[in-house]
Amino acid sequence: MARWEGNTRLRLEQAALELFTEQGYDRTTVAQIAKRANLTERSFYRWFTDKREALFGGGEELEERLVAAIGDVPEGTGPLATLLTAFAAASDVFRPRAFLRERAAVIAANPPLQERELIKLTSLSRVLTEALVERGHDPATARTATDAGMAVFRLAGERWMADEQADYAELVTAGAADLLAILAEAAPGPPGPPPPTRTRVLR
Amino acid sequence: MARWEGNTRLRLEQAALELFTEQGYDRTTVAQIAKRANLTERSFYRWFTDKREALFGGGEELEERLVAAIGDVPEGTGPLATLLTAFAAASDVFRPRAFLRERAAVIAANPPLQERELIKLTSLSRVLTEALVERGHDPATARTATDAGMAVFRLAGERWMADEQADYAELVTAGAADLLAILAEAAPGPPGPPPPTRTRVLR
Repeated sequence: MARWEGNTRLRLEQAALELFTEQGYDRTTVAQIAKRANLTERSFYRWFTDKREALFGGGEELEERLVAAIGDVPEGTGPLATLLTAFAAASDVFRPRAFLRERAAVIAANPPLQERELIKLTSLSRVLTEALVERGHDPATARTATDAGMAVFRLAGERWMADEQADYAELVTAGAADLLAILAEAAPGPPGPPPPTRTRVLR
Repeated sequence: MARWEGNTRLRLEQAALELFTEQGYDRTTVAQIAKRANLTERSFYRWFTDKREALFGGGEELEERLVAAIGDVPEGTGPLATLLTAFAAASDVFRPRAFLRERAAVIAANPPLQERELIKLTSLSRVLTEALVERGHDPATARTATDAGMAVFRLAGERWMADEQADYAELVTAGAADLLAILAEAAPGPPGPPPPTRTRVLR
């Protein structure tokens, strides 16, 4: 990932994450982060409003890439298929797996960061729903497709972080199939042939 | 709903909601809420830590009822079917539709309340996932079933609030079928007969 190297913002993110992991989020200062990255505090504040934001810098980038990727999906594609295609296409802006794993650990240990993460994910949901509505899907369908898409996104993301070799696009497809199997069992629909399920199970 | 009437806590919730709606959340004080409910401030603080909590009083009750309802579902039921059955069974603790509609409007107008709502919903998700894991479902499946269940819960809840005559259990079933149709279109699985879809569409 060439974007990851040599970029001021990404160096600051990496330095922040290292310090949060080594000495705790609360005890880390912006001055320490800047020093670790061999940059000035002024550089830090050019990119982030506070130390918390250093963990969420990739969020806006992802949002922008996803909206762009949704725009590239052929017209007439169903709402959830549109989202899943966009997720797979936008994975090039993901931070490296090791970074994301450490980031998840820091967030899990700090309730204020968890709240921030929740708010960011909700903002992402809202943006995706709006993008689907702009493509002509009715708002309730767009919102429900987004709920399903976010569930697949979370599932694929967790598997991607856990497995260095995994291909993200394949995990998105597998996650959608797993969610479908869970739903099909609970809501089998009117009498007729059962929906196809996969033998792949969630472990 | 007999539980709704004559209950100190519910009178305080109703008074708080009225004042939030009439004069705004920020401008309403605990003293005003207590006065509107013909109760003392001390009574208020017996039930709630602050005015914000007066909007979220039903959350813990719902959580408890859902966990109890999950325990009542026959063993061997699939994870999402378990959740959907529990949602339908726990709807007797819902506040009246008019209350929930006004509550939703107040929350939508106040970002700190939106954050609180998000945190409460996340807490509910966590509790449901744990309850499924305790019943023997593996954690990843339990979590994914919870994601799907929360999507159905939201969809059914919005329709229930909007339609005075609607039956909640039927809306849960319809919501699950709608989510299934959206997923089946995006993740059709291996070659075979197409999964059944419903003609009911989300509008």
